[in-house]
Amino acid sequence: MKFKIIKKSKENKARISLLYTPHGEVELPNFMPVASQGTVKTLPPKDLKEIGVQIIVSNTYHLHLRPGEDLINKMGGLHKFMNFEGVILTDSGGFQVFSLSELREVKEEGVEFKSHIDGKKIFFTPEKVVEIQLKLGSDILMVLDECPSYPSDKAYAEKSLDLTLKWAERSYKYFKNAILKEENPPLIFAISQGSTYLDLRKKGIEEILKYEFDGYAIGGLAVGEPTEVREEIILNIIDLFPEDKPRYIMGVGYPEDIFFCIEHGIDLFDCVLPTRNARTGLVFTSQGKIRIKNSIFADDENPLDPECDCYVCKNFTRAYIRHLFNAEEYLALYLASYHSVYFYINLMKKIRKSIKEDRFYEFKKRFFEKYKVD
Amino acid sequence: MKFKIIKKSKENKARISLLYTPHGEVELPNFMPVASQGTVKTLPPKDLKEIGVQIIVSNTYHLHLRPGEDLINKMGGLHKFMNFEGVILTDSGGFQVFSLSELREVKEEGVEFKSHIDGKKIFFTPEKVVEIQLKLGSDILMVLDECPSYPSDKAYAEKSLDLTLKWAERSYKYFKNAILKEENPPLIFAISQGSTYLDLRKKGIEEILKYEFDGYAIGGLAVGEPTEVREEIILNIIDLFPEDKPRYIMGVGYPEDIFFCIEHGIDLFDCVLPTRNARTGLVFTSQGKIRIKNSIFADDENPLDPECDCYVCKNFTRAYIRHLFNAEEYLALYLASYHSVYFYINLMKKIRKSIKEDRFYEFKKRFFEKYKVD
Repeated sequence: MKFKIIKKSKENKARISLLYTPHGEVELPNFMPVASQGTVKTLPPKDLKEIGVQIIVSNTYHLHLRPGEDLINKMGGLHKFMNFEGVILTDSGGFQVFSLSELREVKEEGVEFKSHIDGKKIFFTPEKVVEIQLKLGSDILMVLDECPSYPSDKAYAEKSLDLTLKWAERSYKYFKNAILKEENPPLIFAISQGSTYLDLRKKGIEEILKYEFDGYAIGGLAVGEPTEVREEIILNIIDLFPEDKPRYIMGVGYPEDIFFCIEHGIDLFDCVLPTRNARTGLVFTSQGKIRIKNSIFADDENPLDPECDCYVCKNFTRAYIRHLFNAEEYLALYLASYHSVYFYINLMKKIRKSIKEDRFYEFKKRFFEKYKVD
Repeated sequence: MKFKIIKKSKENKARISLLYTPHGEVELPNFMPVASQGTVKTLPPKDLKEIGVQIIVSNTYHLHLRPGEDLINKMGGLHKFMNFEGVILTDSGGFQVFSLSELREVKEEGVEFKSHIDGKKIFFTPEKVVEIQLKLGSDILMVLDECPSYPSDKAYAEKSLDLTLKWAERSYKYFKNAILKEENPPLIFAISQGSTYLDLRKKGIEEILKYEFDGYAIGGLAVGEPTEVREEIILNIIDLFPEDKPRYIMGVGYPEDIFFCIEHGIDLFDCVLPTRNARTGLVFTSQGKIRIKNSIFADDENPLDPECDCYVCKNFTRAYIRHLFNAEEYLALYLASYHSVYFYINLMKKIRKSIKEDRFYEFKKRFFEKYKVD
């Protein structure tokens, strides 16, 4: 068994579940900090443990380019390489091929692109991408997909979806064959595409359901579309996914987005927001986001978040962290990242608790009474 | 009592001692990681504790410019501000005024200079510098001095020394008056100057010994002079200092320099080497310094230092840390800094043990059989 629902909300479609992987179980709903290059930026793994991070997302595109899956495999796999004991999901790199690299050529066989680091030509096929993730020792593999940008015209979105579906089938078959003899094999998730076209989304989901994927991701959202458009799609497709499989929405998001998604049945999230924003001095708190470089914090003796009990909030003032940002000290990035990752992980924990106790809406209401969405 | 010798070496002038300060005692000989702007670069204080750092050196010049001693004082002092429970020595800023700032004008009253950050004109007097350090809540204050660069002609060095001596007297008097009513006052150290001229050094030391300073620093060395010149001066002045006071050589240095200084009776050290080098990928190991970015480490499964038992060496390979440097990940700077600071702190611990057991030379010999000085 790879997925077990522990509790269904009496209030809405939210559920508490356990996802079983080769590196232990993950409580869902949960949030994955981003570790594209084999590290959650600025945070040593002992801090991820201290924070309570159960699962992170790393990246096939980045690790293939540097240092390469063969090196990581030789070093005993990504968990050992980066010294992370928890669960690692690896994104297929589809999104990065289409957002970071240059001179792409998409063919049915796969996608050719130039490395954004050294311009080297690289050819990714669905099979190759599964193979890379197996070499990395990923716990949860994602299939190679094409992620159209927003907006996409329907003809392009449809053509792209057809390719993504063919790739999903090939990924599934290659994966199943590759893990035949594995005692404790990793999981593989398919990805729903179809841009903002509901009929394409439905067609796509029907197709990927033909294979026994271990979970389903919603891709191609959080790429610039209006919130209402995203929410409309989620509302209309969520029931197409089987209840007994985990659902992951890629690249989402802000706390308000996460609440919405969980309420409507999504289990897993990843986003660069807590870490990327932290490095610019924008940190998440129970009152909303604050720009710690702002001069109003110059002599503020409060912690980043007065309601937070993380290492950073128990030991440092806003005044100190603002000073570190002003003085361009690396420790500023570390302290802000630590806190914001903790904020997300702790939020997921509190949301899980609220679902368990059937008081999701009460918790949500209380949360947004304080948390200002800007 | 502020200083107690625990054990004198039977082999040489080395000694084991305890230095008592308002924030507890420090075992000497010891090494101070540099925290100029109120943080040992990249390392949170919980790691300094884990490493075993007993004392750090911060900086009057840097903290006066940013964020200012009044702010730090309002925040409860530097210990609380940066959340460091150990002992803090603050350098007077003399060295920084003469190395970092522009358009200096040195008068008997003090030194006027322009901030290297915003060009603002600032005037430091010996009294002002003591006052700043008291506001910071420093455990060990340093007097304002002028630090001539190397080489300095004798006429300049003599004139500069005379000023430094006048400033030392004024610093002492101002300090003693300021702490009159303090129950647990901080300590104040004087600084020996005189460039590379032995007669000036001797004259200067005689003068500062007229006041009851709590310790004596050797300044104006490690500024570019040949090692032989530095060693010659140390050998010729060390016995001029009273035995019952701690001796601190500023800005030293490499392990080989530290061994030499301890052997000849010096107790306290500070240097940017472990942290600054670490950030460029140059780390200290029991075999000598290694450039971790070097391609020979690309698939090296060893830790940075196979003989080290720090967090970094117990959990990460050279291959991983090299990857992080290549990928320009902040964690690279953290891991390299953590290890190199540990290397220094652990070296001091082992040197103290060797002195206690009267096997300093045996330990030194064994150390340099492995450690390659380049």
